[in-house]
Amino acid sequence: MDPNEFKDFSKDMTSFIVNYLENIRERRVLPTVEPGYMKPLLPEEAPQKAEDWQNIMNDLERVIMPGVTHWHSPKFHAYFPTAQSYPAIVADMLSGAIACIGFTWGTASEATLVALLGAKVKKIKQVKEQHPDWSDSDIVGKLVAYGSAQAHSSVERAGLLGGVKHRLLETDSKHQLRGETLAEAIQADKENGLIPFYVVGTLGTTSSCTFDRIDELGPICNSEEIWLHVDAAYAGSAFICPEFRYLMRGVERADSFNFNPHKWMLVNFDCSPLWLKDPTYVINAFNVDPLYLKHDMQGSAPDYRHWQIPLGRRFRALKLWFVLRLYGVENLQKYIRNHVAQAHEFESLVLADPRFEVVEEVVLGLVCFRLKVISFITYNYNYANNNKVLIYFKNFQGSNELNELLLKRINGAGNIHLVPSKINDCYFLRLAICSRFSESKDIQYSWQEIKTRADEVLKENSA
Amino acid sequence: MDPNEFKDFSKDMTSFIVNYLENIRERRVLPTVEPGYMKPLLPEEAPQKAEDWQNIMNDLERVIMPGVTHWHSPKFHAYFPTAQSYPAIVADMLSGAIACIGFTWGTASEATLVALLGAKVKKIKQVKEQHPDWSDSDIVGKLVAYGSAQAHSSVERAGLLGGVKHRLLETDSKHQLRGETLAEAIQADKENGLIPFYVVGTLGTTSSCTFDRIDELGPICNSEEIWLHVDAAYAGSAFICPEFRYLMRGVERADSFNFNPHKWMLVNFDCSPLWLKDPTYVINAFNVDPLYLKHDMQGSAPDYRHWQIPLGRRFRALKLWFVLRLYGVENLQKYIRNHVAQAHEFESLVLADPRFEVVEEVVLGLVCFRLKVISFITYNYNYANNNKVLIYFKNFQGSNELNELLLKRINGAGNIHLVPSKINDCYFLRLAICSRFSESKDIQYSWQEIKTRADEVLKENSA
Repeated sequence: MDPNEFKDFSKDMTSFIVNYLENIRERRVLPTVEPGYMKPLLPEEAPQKAEDWQNIMNDLERVIMPGVTHWHSPKFHAYFPTAQSYPAIVADMLSGAIACIGFTWGTASEATLVALLGAKVKKIKQVKEQHPDWSDSDIVGKLVAYGSAQAHSSVERAGLLGGVKHRLLETDSKHQLRGETLAEAIQADKENGLIPFYVVGTLGTTSSCTFDRIDELGPICNSEEIWLHVDAAYAGSAFICPEFRYLMRGVERADSFNFNPHKWMLVNFDCSPLWLKDPTYVINAFNVDPLYLKHDMQGSAPDYRHWQIPLGRRFRALKLWFVLRLYGVENLQKYIRNHVAQAHEFESLVLADPRFEVVEEVVLGLVCFRLKVISFITYNYNYANNNKVLIYFKNFQGSNELNELLLKRINGAGNIHLVPSKINDCYFLRLAICSRFSESKDIQYSWQEIKTRADEVLKENSA
Repeated sequence: MDPNEFKDFSKDMTSFIVNYLENIRERRVLPTVEPGYMKPLLPEEAPQKAEDWQNIMNDLERVIMPGVTHWHSPKFHAYFPTAQSYPAIVADMLSGAIACIGFTWGTASEATLVALLGAKVKKIKQVKEQHPDWSDSDIVGKLVAYGSAQAHSSVERAGLLGGVKHRLLETDSKHQLRGETLAEAIQADKENGLIPFYVVGTLGTTSSCTFDRIDELGPICNSEEIWLHVDAAYAGSAFICPEFRYLMRGVERADSFNFNPHKWMLVNFDCSPLWLKDPTYVINAFNVDPLYLKHDMQGSAPDYRHWQIPLGRRFRALKLWFVLRLYGVENLQKYIRNHVAQAHEFESLVLADPRFEVVEEVVLGLVCFRLKVISFITYNYNYANNNKVLIYFKNFQGSNELNELLLKRINGAGNIHLVPSKINDCYFLRLAICSRFSESKDIQYSWQEIKTRADEVLKENSA
């Protein structure tokens, strides 16, 4: 492909992208195809001869788009947002052109696991000083990490991958991990000969966007010499607004902190900065330094390759820089506040409908709601003796099934997309404000869609 | 940024990229700045108000480019290539616009660690069947993995991260890991009560592009029930050419195979496919399946999120698809063959200069060379008695220092970029053909540059 073809191709793709994004709300958010749909649309083998780029453009709607879940549609309310913006796309073009592999100056990811491995190395070293006769595997067998039962699955997975015990701790009535619970668990484990070494506190859980009490966990971790990692993947971006910073009270006690601008700060995936109070232990966990990676500047700036699992990285800082400059703090704050306002707008709509309840406090851009327990009672009135007689009683006590049906109906229609969660056996629907195109009219649309599906489900199940 | 601004910005960036890439050989390949250079060029804080995109364009040469090592310059011969192409850049634009997070259908990375964790789970399960009374940490403490002493540092690091013993095995005179060496190590470790469980065979080592004998390692691994992982990160792309496939003889015995199209197949970083003979164990190592990630299609296609460490991925398959189509197999083969031919051209130049030697067989696109051991002997001739008397003797026996000086001089001048390696205490320079713009004239230029620096170094050190 010569430079002129590249210019034409890039221009055509730019138009395609604008057309795709500016009209994204017109598309069905979920695909209707099933796994395997693409196979008959594609040749069995890669082409021997180069094709024209126009062929690819023609195939985008035919081959690719039918399989796409449109994560940037204002009708997409699943998981949490994943960021995207025009400046970030242009930055990635440049990143793709420079296409250097950042070993040394850049950003970080895989934060929970990386921090856990650092904590593991730190604790093994500490324990060996007291028990020089214990082997590494003796010690590792005793190590125990903690997270809230509401923490993201990646927290438990980090324990699995790191080869250590991991305990999920119960949360309070607001689903926050409290200091007292942690202290009890540590005490019990120490009495059983285990070695507590790592705690993950979550700010903005995936299930319901609740906030562990870092201000209570911090002092305990510090006095017990346990590594405290703060996972603020989603909520971290909101701290750009001063009015939300109370949610991370006590954060100065943490050993590591991670958030994802690629979730809620308009920077395309992946961009997940990790801050470490003392990177020494992470570096020790990872550092294998062959000659071909040595360089004269060694030591003059952090060698971020020791902070992560892959050796190299793309030049991801570019897109963060482009976004910060081309939005400005002001517009990023506006963006966050706008999403939070839309979540509250949706919350009001839910609360105004007696069939629904909101099951968690709405703090940022997530609303957790469900069809309430509803009892249908029908009486037969006997005019003769002025008595009423119960002839039909049906209630949806424990109506997780009903809410599952509702969600299935919503996603089946494919006009909007939500995912569910479950806490203490209570199944609910999560509506996250995700799209940068989302406006009040989209919230109204999504609510109408949910009401329509609820009407259907209730009608069919109350006969 | 509105769509029209995005179109203008994207168009301007496209021109910048074309101008950058098509003239990349004019730039000094290595930067002259030092870490920290950027700080005074940047404001202390992110801007409050949005800036114009033109400001960013103006800052690219001022702020970013001075710090860039130009990985795509034909004067860049360090490490191995990292891929880049116009089709891949356009594909990434689309990937950035769709900006979905692939959990379920996509590609994989972190291959060596992932395979090791799978092998670990598999072996623990096997051992537990024979010794139901052994705990996980008893078993993990006995596990031992193997790789060649020439394997990439990430292989040893996988052992560290996976919390298992890792042995680096000696290679033969051609720096290949042989079956006999592996068999002896396994035997010795088993006699010491250890449990061998994982072997990494490398096709195309980073140090010198040598090839472990998969045909010998395979049968041993299979009969000992040890997981054989093949790391063909660099060389794997060459197997698109039938004439290089002999290098992977025996590959059908492997349990997993990984190569990096982002190294040598024109697909921008990162794109690192991992093939698993039986993914069950990897899935078991990683699988934590919360409700919010469950979906109706579960089981109908592989859930690749269980195959990797991060939960999500960008839509990276797009760029592989664009590149395969817009180059065609034919041009990809031509690309590989062209690089290999340039390596042989450089090899001839080195061999024609009596001051240099080539220290490894040139198989693909890497030439390993060094200044030979040279002795300068000066005699004083006594005409009276027709005797000559040795008055000066200097040799560079073990002249690693001399080659280090040469490399320092080359990289210091910054016109071309190489990195060194060392095998059995023999230090040498690695010249890799990396750039997609590389032509014969660039090889000639790089050789002239090396000769000039060698002249300087030899002159200064032979006085």
